[in-house]
Amino acid sequence: MLVEGVAHRAVEWHQGSGCVCWIDQRLLPFRFEKTFTQDPEDLAKAIETMAVRGAPTIGAAAAYGLALAGSFDRSCFFKYWLPRFRRTRPTAVNLFHACDVLEQAVAEGLSGKQLIELANDYADREVRANRRIGEIMAEYLARGGQRILTHCNAGWLAAVDWGTATAGMYTLHREGERLHVWVDETRPRLQGSRLTAWEMVQEGLSCALLADGAAAWMMSRGEVDAIVVGADRIARNGDVANKIGTYALSLAASEHGIPMYVAAPSSTFDMKLGSGRAIPIEERGEEELLEVEGMDEHGSMRRVRLAAQGIGSCNPAFDVTPFQNVTAIISEQGVFIPDTSERLPADD
Amino acid sequence: MLVEGVAHRAVEWHQGSGCVCWIDQRLLPFRFEKTFTQDPEDLAKAIETMAVRGAPTIGAAAAYGLALAGSFDRSCFFKYWLPRFRRTRPTAVNLFHACDVLEQAVAEGLSGKQLIELANDYADREVRANRRIGEIMAEYLARGGQRILTHCNAGWLAAVDWGTATAGMYTLHREGERLHVWVDETRPRLQGSRLTAWEMVQEGLSCALLADGAAAWMMSRGEVDAIVVGADRIARNGDVANKIGTYALSLAASEHGIPMYVAAPSSTFDMKLGSGRAIPIEERGEEELLEVEGMDEHGSMRRVRLAAQGIGSCNPAFDVTPFQNVTAIISEQGVFIPDTSERLPADD
Repeated sequence: MLVEGVAHRAVEWHQGSGCVCWIDQRLLPFRFEKTFTQDPEDLAKAIETMAVRGAPTIGAAAAYGLALAGSFDRSCFFKYWLPRFRRTRPTAVNLFHACDVLEQAVAEGLSGKQLIELANDYADREVRANRRIGEIMAEYLARGGQRILTHCNAGWLAAVDWGTATAGMYTLHREGERLHVWVDETRPRLQGSRLTAWEMVQEGLSCALLADGAAAWMMSRGEVDAIVVGADRIARNGDVANKIGTYALSLAASEHGIPMYVAAPSSTFDMKLGSGRAIPIEERGEEELLEVEGMDEHGSMRRVRLAAQGIGSCNPAFDVTPFQNVTAIISEQGVFIPDTSERLPADD
Repeated sequence: MLVEGVAHRAVEWHQGSGCVCWIDQRLLPFRFEKTFTQDPEDLAKAIETMAVRGAPTIGAAAAYGLALAGSFDRSCFFKYWLPRFRRTRPTAVNLFHACDVLEQAVAEGLSGKQLIELANDYADREVRANRRIGEIMAEYLARGGQRILTHCNAGWLAAVDWGTATAGMYTLHREGERLHVWVDETRPRLQGSRLTAWEMVQEGLSCALLADGAAAWMMSRGEVDAIVVGADRIARNGDVANKIGTYALSLAASEHGIPMYVAAPSSTFDMKLGSGRAIPIEERGEEELLEVEGMDEHGSMRRVRLAAQGIGSCNPAFDVTPFQNVTAIISEQGVFIPDTSERLPADD
């Protein structure tokens, strides 16, 4: 998507320099900076530190990182780099999917150049999936009202380009439809306030932030026509792991009869898992609730303490929304039909 | 309650100086400071700026402020001071209740000294109510498990002393029971992280912060045995206005069969209102979501920008939880029996 008129992807191959480059999302919305590297370790660290984040972007970043790793020293690839990348984050399945794709390619003996082409294809496929998800989702959203609530960032930063949850909104907006997007701020990392808000402002959509706790109340007041979120992993029975707070949204949506859509490319589906119970949920450091970084009045980034001294926090980064709370899961292949026949045994 | 071994109330009369004094809650948890005044305007501003906050503390602060106002110039009392205090905050009914009490006392010709005594009585009555609520609530909580979730600050800072939601927890804790308290951070003003956390640490209770969006997920994982919150206004049918996010909690509690208790003294009940629909909900400034203040590494308070430039926010400060989502409302008089006969007409 465009940033001040220039097209960018969240992570991409830069032909001129022979580097992989990505937008450092930790600096947004205050600084727009791209990092260039030929070192796979930089990509592994970028995933770990959430400089790149969002399930499809994590997958593409891992594909590029492993393409670099496979280009240099194949003896290390299987012993060191594959496990290194698989350990970076636990919840988003796209990471493991990308690792599998690159593992097979290196095993088949693809050249370094071919591995980079494969990673480019991987990223392109994600973007094409998002475009298609956007077309399908636009039809759903155009039928209902125009006030759409989203949580976290399932925008183009999270999904290489176009976004998953946002693809339908951008599609409608570019078709001239008038939308209003409610953006949950999404504590503790504020991906809504920092990333989705930044994307929406860049793209010129009407939008406003909500405290996460306000979303259910806005639904009860009739201010929300639909909810669209992304996903980090979807089990065979349709259970959806997504950013913490999604499950609470799904309860309020069910209570108020508001459609709740999940948008996710095929790489987010984990058909090996019978239900959401088996999805590993990342627990992140407690400091994410105790401190926050922001820009001071002089334009400098500062970390400040928010919470009383002496208290800790419990910080699950994701939750699981059962399929019965979801109106439809949309992938590039259309509406996902879950295999609920296996739900009860898997839940036992 | 004790702060480093010395007993304090959130707002109180200081006999030695002939001043009303209060803890400036905007500075907590980083600085503990009390402000002293004989000027009613200082109290009106303290309520407006949330230097004092929490429904019962607001009521007591208004009682003291109007006692000062009635002590000085009675000609101004009815024309200026009563409307001045009634305009400070819209949602907590304790404010209007205290204004009514002082209005009647001044109309009856009480002396300045008598008005201060009346305000002291008003505050004492709130504290006695909290002690009684604590005794009743402790029985409820002792029956269930010991992991209690609370939202915002319905602690002693919010309720002169002992607190409403916290009174039962403090009672059990002082009786030697082992509790664990999950404290919702409570965006946007972080009363959980700043105030409830500070109270809990001072009192030595086991506690940890949660992102507001994580509470429902913690319930679904079986980590929460009961929810206890305060209230800013309760309608005749039992609908409860409380800090934004309470309604979302109530939906998750209902879903998971977790008891949800509301603790509130009689001054929080508004028997003139048939249902929660008639409760005015304060909308606060959008900057509360866009910026935050915290303590930097040098111990200085700093305001930092959190959100992308160009986005605004929608910031309702309270929401209304329908009585059917509440297990019991506990006042000093026991379990509140709502007048649901009038619910349907009032809701029409």
